[in-house]
This record gives sequence, structure tokens and C-alpha cells, in this order.
Amino acid sequence: MSGKGINVAIIGVGLVGSAVIQQLSALPALHIVLLQNSRKTLLSPAAAALSSGSWADALASSSTAALPLPELVTKLQELAKETGRHTAVVDNTSNDDVASFYPSLLGAGFSVVTPNKKALSGSLDLYKQIQAATADAASGPLLYGESTVGAGLPIIGTLKDLIATGDEVEKIEGVLSGTLSYIFNEFSTAKGSDVKFSTVVKVAKENGYTEPHPDADLSGSDVSRKLTILSRLIPSLTSALPKGFLSVPTASLTPEPLRDIASGEEYVARLPEFDAHFDEMRAEALKEGKVLRYVGVIDVLKGEVKASLERYPVTHPFATSLTGSDNIISFTTKRYERPLLVQGAGAGAAVTAMGVTADLIRVAERRG
Amino acid sequence: MSGKGINVAIIGVGLVGSAVIQQLSALPALHIVLLQNSRKTLLSPAAAALSSGSWADALASSSTAALPLPELVTKLQELAKETGRHTAVVDNTSNDDVASFYPSLLGAGFSVVTPNKKALSGSLDLYKQIQAATADAASGPLLYGESTVGAGLPIIGTLKDLIATGDEVEKIEGVLSGTLSYIFNEFSTAKGSDVKFSTVVKVAKENGYTEPHPDADLSGSDVSRKLTILSRLIPSLTSALPKGFLSVPTASLTPEPLRDIASGEEYVARLPEFDAHFDEMRAEALKEGKVLRYVGVIDVLKGEVKASLERYPVTHPFATSLTGSDNIISFTTKRYERPLLVQGAGAGAAVTAMGVTADLIRVAERRG
Repeated sequence: MSGKGINVAIIGVGLVGSAVIQQLSALPALHIVLLQNSRKTLLSPAAAALSSGSWADALASSSTAALPLPELVTKLQELAKETGRHTAVVDNTSNDDVASFYPSLLGAGFSVVTPNKKALSGSLDLYKQIQAATADAASGPLLYGESTVGAGLPIIGTLKDLIATGDEVEKIEGVLSGTLSYIFNEFSTAKGSDVKFSTVVKVAKENGYTEPHPDADLSGSDVSRKLTILSRLIPSLTSALPKGFLSVPTASLTPEPLRDIASGEEYVARLPEFDAHFDEMRAEALKEGKVLRYVGVIDVLKGEVKASLERYPVTHPFATSLTGSDNIISFTTKRYERPLLVQGAGAGAAVTAMGVTADLIRVAERRG
Repeated sequence: MSGKGINVAIIGVGLVGSAVIQQLSALPALHIVLLQNSRKTLLSPAAAALSSGSWADALASSSTAALPLPELVTKLQELAKETGRHTAVVDNTSNDDVASFYPSLLGAGFSVVTPNKKALSGSLDLYKQIQAATADAASGPLLYGESTVGAGLPIIGTLKDLIATGDEVEKIEGVLSGTLSYIFNEFSTAKGSDVKFSTVVKVAKENGYTEPHPDADLSGSDVSRKLTILSRLIPSLTSALPKGFLSVPTASLTPEPLRDIASGEEYVARLPEFDAHFDEMRAEALKEGKVLRYVGVIDVLKGEVKASLERYPVTHPFATSLTGSDNIISFTTKRYERPLLVQGAGAGAAVTAMGVTADLIRVAERRG
């Protein structure tokens, strides 16, 4: 980390953003110069406010309305000039406008660190603009998004290292959704389980493990976004490269007749109608000595990327080692014939913030 | 990676060194300026020789005898001046003289990248000299040693990220020796096994999975070296910080009467005398529904570091997920209450070289 350090602007100060602020308060080389939510902007927050948590009140009572993004750029450029420091912008939102503004942020010379999947899993056009804006790896702006897949788990960094050192990735396979991990770890066990699928989903929703509308998880779109992000890092996958997450073949777990239901409550209430279907799949798997897991698969040799419900032998790490709402990912490569596995919590504010903070440290190491 | 890139000097060109050279030949920003083994030095090897592998002949027929380390420093300083580039020295040896020369290399302004455990697990005095020489993280020389534990697996980087972002490490536990992983994965299985301990060791030796003298593995010293390296990264462990790997309580698997046998062959021939002892330990574990695994443990809460033979439930990932000669490591932290797990090949030239090459890329990103 440099003597100068870097300026950090944080857009989005919800659970993850708050945890990032808390982690950064112990790292003096990472200077928080701006906080912004959808309503307000707080410029140059006091160090004491950042470490005590009173920044939240200061932001709420700030007299500055949330800066439109082009004005934010101007302001950050002024602060960069005053301090002589490089600037990193952290996007903790899930806002499309912020995501599509990355090329402008990078174009202004700012690095971008993000746990938000939108930009990196969106249109190929946006992705190519981001690539072009970060092409000067020697001294240009940087983009890091470790937390977009598996939160703080070393997944994107590991994949980048494998590729940069010349390994050939053959297959990536993983349980990439904490919600779907929990649901199938409960529903389909090696010993056999007779709990109903709808009951597991209902309990998950009640405990806040699903989005308010469970279809947001059960549709698999979170997994196809993560697959898109990982796929785009694999140069040999060009032919199968997703045009965006919508082009990844994705098996939705939501029964056809429930796909247009707008209310999460009604959705959960009607799910029992389809329990027999899930029971049958589970029984068929168990007959083969297997369990059901909802996984993302990138099969480089076959040129295939998909999110789907698959069967794994009860002796497979996805069946034996995985618990709770953990993520697990397996990299099979030319060098790692027996896969390299990474497992652990793939969601949660503190571990997501850890990925963001570690990325910011890397920006400071390279541009501070 | 910078436009300038960095100069790389490689000391030790055996299996790992050769694999590093092969990986670097695809990375033009990493300029190999010197190769050295115990006999010869080759200056400014031709790029064509590096990618084709003919560097080995060129080194063997070089007219320059291996440079003494102080002369190597002078030579590398000349080359740094000529090229205007930062220099990284890679130590692929297991040589004590090279290890104790790290402070001088760092003092000359060179970064050091090493898969060699000697310096980082040796005396606390040497370690403190290395720390002092790398204290200027903003622009001073860097030291990376990802491959010293688990080869290319993301272990040291992950631990550093956890700590740098303010997580509190509570416990690290792992099967850190590929040889001892293989031996106990064969000897002690969830289903029960009746193979003799001496037979497993004999087969392992015949297949080259052990050192020529198996005591080098069975003594546990490789594990205590790795534990020392990891422990020294944990600031809150100060009271239990190993003075060096010899101060780590380490259970040797070599039966007392065999500890002074100089010949690996005689050692293996006499090992069957002690099979009953190992059979008994295995049976006792299985009676409790457990398997035996030789692990390294850093229990931060208890302030304890040890290498020992422990029992794990047959449902534990160390029993169910681990296969072959893989390493597995588990980090339990304040944020990761269910542990963060990393598993995969922890030895082998290509994966060890991967850790070295990825470390060199980081040096180039920061100093290139």
C-alpha cells in the first residue's frame, strides 16, 4: 500500500456498504472521501464518524442531495486533484444506472470495485466497453469484482491466477447460490429426507434466506449472472461466451403455472401443488445413490455454460461437504485433475464487504 | 502489469524452476535475466531458448560458474540499471545459504518470490530481518511465498486478505502434507480398511510420494514448517508465535526405535514391527466413528500451534472430501463460523510453479 493511499467513494450504504465502511475505518491508507445513497451525498466524512458509525446520521442530515453521476465524477476529480490520490469508486447498489455508468467512471480514470453483478453479467456491449476502459493494466484504472461470485471466497482471484499462469480450465462447477444451497441441502440428503419442497422454501422465506419473492432465487438468474461473470474470464470459451446472463440456459425451479404470480405470499401458498413433482425427482436421484443440487456449470471442453438441477453421488463433496447456505466451487484444469475446491459462506454483509475491502487494498497497492 | 515489466532472476532450475521458466515464457512483461543452479549461471538467456526449453543446455555449457550470492547482487543491480526495471529473485532451492541471504537481497532492493519454506519457517531472527526489509510496502521490495503452503492453492493470500480486512482468525486446521494425506486416506477410511501402515508407506515410497527417506515426511517437520509460516501471519497469535518450526509441538509418526536409522530402505523394512500400534489407533478411532488424519492446527483462541495425528468424524470434510494426496485447509473466523475450506493438489511442479508465477505477476503489478 502506498504512502499516499487512495480516495474511496462509496455509492450505496446499505448492509454491505456499512460493513465496507466499518472495515475501511481501520485502514488509514484508504481515504473515504464520499458517501452516497439514493437521497443524499456526504462529502469528506470525518474519520471519527466513519469509525463510530455516526456517518449514517451525518449522511441523512447532509444538505447535499444525491449527486447525479456526471456531477459525482466532477466532484471526485476535484478531490483527486486536491489530494494527489487515485480514486476508487465502490458500487454497493444493484442499480442499473450505476452499472451502465462504469465506462464513464473508468474513462474518468477512476478504478471501480463492485460486489454488484449487474455490469459484469449484463450486455456484452457494456462488458466490452469496460474491458476497453481497463485495457491499460500498467497505469490505467482497474476493475475488481471478487464479491460478485461467492462474496469474499477466493473464486475470481483464483480463476484469474489459473488463467494468467497458463493453466487450461476444463470445467467449473459449483453451488453458487446460498439460497439454493440451503434449499437442496435440506430437501435432498444422502440419508434421504421426506420434507416437502414447498415447506423448505416457506421456511427459507420466513428466515429471510430468500428474496421477498422466492422466484428471484428459484428462477436461477442469480446463478446465470455468476456464470456469465466467470465465463467471461476464460479466453478459450469464446464460442460459448454468454451475450449476457439472459443467454445462459437456465433451468427455473419455479413451476410454469407460478411464473407470473406477482406476490411472494401467493407463490409460497401455491407451491405445495407441485410437491409431488419435486418428490419424484428426489426419489429418482436417491434410487441412483444421488442427491439433487442446483449448480452452475461451465464445461469448457464441451463449450457449454448452464444453470441447472443436477444429480451428484452421495459421496461427492457437493453432497458430503456442503452444509447450511454455503457455496462450493470446483475447478478442474489441466494442472488440477482432481479439482481445486473452495467452500464457505457465499453471502452476508461482512464476507461480501471483505471481498470489496480486499479489492480496494489491491487497488491501493497498485495505484496508491 | 506495467509497461516496463520486471526483471526475474531464477535460482534453482530443477522441476519447479523449469516449470516456472515454462510459465514465464508466455508472459513477456516478466523478463528472465538470469538462471543459476549450483554449478553455473546463465546471463540474459535468449527468449527462444526459454520457450523451447533449450535454456537447460545453454546453462550447462555456460562459461560462467555459479555466482556467489554477493556477486549475483552486483550483477542484478547492473542489469536493473541498464533496463530501468525492478528485480525479483525466485528461490527454487532448498538451500540454507540462499534462505539466509534474503535480507541482503531485499536490502539491495530486490523483491523475493519463493516456494522454499526455509527462510519463512526458520529462526525468528531471520524472519524479523525479512519483515524489517519489507516494511516499506509503498515502494520497497516485496516478499511473496504463496507456494510455501499448499503450492498454488489460495491459502496464504486468503489468510492475508482475512487479516487485512479485519476478520479475526479463530482456528486454522488442515492436512498440509500431500504425502501424509495420501498415507492416511489409504490407511484410515470411513468404511474401515485393513491395509497395514507399513504397506501404505512402502507403496508410497515406491511410487515416489515420499522423500527417499520416509522419515522426512513422517517426522511431521514439513507440516510444522508450514504451520510456522501461517502462524507468523496472524498478529493476534503473538504469545504462541513459533520461534521457528523446531519450536512447534510436532508428533512424529516414526516409531522411537527407528528415529536414528539412516537408510530409507532399512526404515521401511523395519516398519512392520510397529503395525500393531497403528492398527490399534485406527481401530480406536473407528470405534468412535472417526478416521485418523495427520493435521496442522493453529488454535488462536487457545494460543496453541501443533502438528499431530487427530481423529475426525467420518462425516467431516477431512474424511469425506479429501482424496489422493490433496491438501485441505479450513479457516474458522469470526466472519466464517462455518469454515472457509480450500482443497486441492498441494504438491507437484506445475501447481507449485503456478503459485510462484502468480506471485511474480503481483510483483510486476506493484513494481513493474
